Amino acid sequence: MKRVKLVVAYDGTNYCGWQIQPNGITIESELNKHLSELLGEDIKVIGASRTDSGVHALGNIAVFDTNARIPAEKISYALNQRLPEDIRIQRSEEVEADYHPRHCKSIKTYLYQIENAEFPLPTNRFYSHFTYNILTIEKMQEAAGYLVGEHDFKSFCSTSTDVETTVRTITDIRIEKQGNRISIYVSGTGFLYNMVRIIVGTLMEIGQGKYEPAHIKDILNAKDRAFAGPTAPAKGLTLYHYEFLE
Amino acid sequence: MKRVKLVVAYDGTNYCGWQIQPNGITIESELNKHLSELLGEDIKVIGASRTDSGVHALGNIAVFDTNARIPAEKISYALNQRLPEDIRIQRSEEVEADYHPRHCKSIKTYLYQIENAEFPLPTNRFYSHFTYNILTIEKMQEAAGYLVGEHDFKSFCSTSTDVETTVRTITDIRIEKQGNRISIYVSGTGFLYNMVRIIVGTLMEIGQGKYEPAHIKDILNAKDRAFAGPTAPAKGLTLYHYEFLE
Repeated sequence: MKRVKLVVAYDGTNYCGWQIQPNGITIESELNKHLSELLGEDIKVIGASRTDSGVHALGNIAVFDTNARIPAEKISYALNQRLPEDIRIQRSEEVEADYHPRHCKSIKTYLYQIENAEFPLPTNRFYSHFTYNILTIEKMQEAAGYLVGEHDFKSFCSTSTDVETTVRTITDIRIEKQGNRISIYVSGTGFLYNMVRIIVGTLMEIGQGKYEPAHIKDILNAKDRAFAGPTAPAKGLTLYHYEFLE
Repeated sequence: MKRVKLVVAYDGTNYCGWQIQPNGITIESELNKHLSELLGEDIKVIGASRTDSGVHALGNIAVFDTNARIPAEKISYALNQRLPEDIRIQRSEEVEADYHPRHCKSIKTYLYQIENAEFPLPTNRFYSHFTYNILTIEKMQEAAGYLVGEHDFKSFCSTSTDVETTVRTITDIRIEKQGNRISIYVSGTGFLYNMVRIIVGTLMEIGQGKYEPAHIKDILNAKDRAFAGPTAPAKGLTLYHYEFLE
C-alpha cells in the first residue's frame, strides 16, 4: 500500500466544482472514476481545496492510497491518457502514509483575473471577469494592505457557512496591471467560503471610487457580510499555487 | 451613405474561419447577419484578413457601407448586444468612402503561443499549441533573424495556393518566454497562405535541435514547401494587431 499525491490542474468551466455531488460531474468524481479504472481498485481521493463550481486550478492537490504496482511518478502519464482534456495531472509522487493535504500547514495562493476595458476580448471570457467600470489599482492596492495579516474575516464570508472561527491570516495580496488585465494574487494560510471572491468584489468597489481604501477597516470591524461588496464571479478565480510549509 | 470600419476580436474555436462558406458558420457570416438585422439593410462586410478555421483575432478589420442614421461609433455597442459572446467589436468608426482594408499599406502582427512543459494546463488548451519537446528559444531567435526582411517565402507557403509572387516582407519576429509559455510575434506587410504557421512549425524543429538555425537559409533557397517544417496547429495563432501606414 502506498499513498500518492497528485498536483491537479483543471478548467472549472464545465464542472460542478471539486466535491462529489449527487447530480453533476465534479473534479473529484472524474478523478475517482478514472483512477479506479486505471488501477483496478476502488479509489477515493482526498482533495486539499474544495473549489466551487466554475473555479479553475493550476495546482490543486489530491491524495489517495493504492496497492497497484505502477510507480507513483508514472501515474500522471497514465491518468492523463484517460482524463478529459479539461483536467490534467501536473505531477504525481509517493508521500508518507500519514500525509493529509488538509492537515498540513500550507500557504495557498489564489489568482483573480479582471479584464478592464471598453469591450471584452472573447479569448479571455472563460478565465476573467470583465468590467467596463474604470478601476484605479492604486486604491485597490492601498485597500488590500488593510486585509493582510490576521483578522476576523466574518464580513468576507458567505453567510451560509458554519465554521468555528472566522479568524484567518492573509499573508500577501499582490495586484498587478498589464494592459487591460488586472491580476489579484491573494495568499493565506486558510480561507473562508467565498472569501477571495468577496474580497475581490469589495476591492473592485473601492477601485471604482465607491468607498475610500480605509473603509476596509470599517468592513472588517462590522463582522457582517452585508458591509462588504458583492461576490465576484467564479470564472475569474484560479487556485494558483500551494506551498506546503512542513 | 457612410463607410464604417470595425475592429473585430474573436475566439475562432467554433468557427470555420473568417470567410463565408457554403456550409458552416464563419465570422463574416455572423457579422453580415447581425449587422443586417441591426441596420435593416443587406450588409456585406469586407474583411482585412481571411483568417483560417480555428484562428483567433484581437483586431481583425471589417468595413461596410450603410445608410443607417446610427452614429458609426455607436455601432460597436449595439452590435455587441446581438453578437455571440465569442465575437466582440472593439471599436467602430466612420472612414473615407474609398477606404478598403486590403488596399491600404499596413503592418500586420500575428502572435503564436506555445506551451512548453511536461503536461499542458487545461486553461491554455484553446489558445496555445502544447509540446513537451524542450525548445531552446535562443536557437529559434537566431533562426528567426534569417527570415526578417524581403524574401521569397515559397517554402513557407501551402502548396495549394495560386499567387502571382511568393515574395513577402517580414518586418520583425520577436520570441519571448515567460514561464512555460513561448510567444512568437511575427510582423509583416503581407503573408502567404499558412505562412506564419509553417514558420512556427519550422522554428519549433530548430528549437528542438533537429536543424541548426542557419538551415533556414537553405529552406528559403529551396523554394519548396517540402523543405520547411510542419504547419503548426491553428488554435495557437492569433491575429494580434493591424497598423495602417497611410
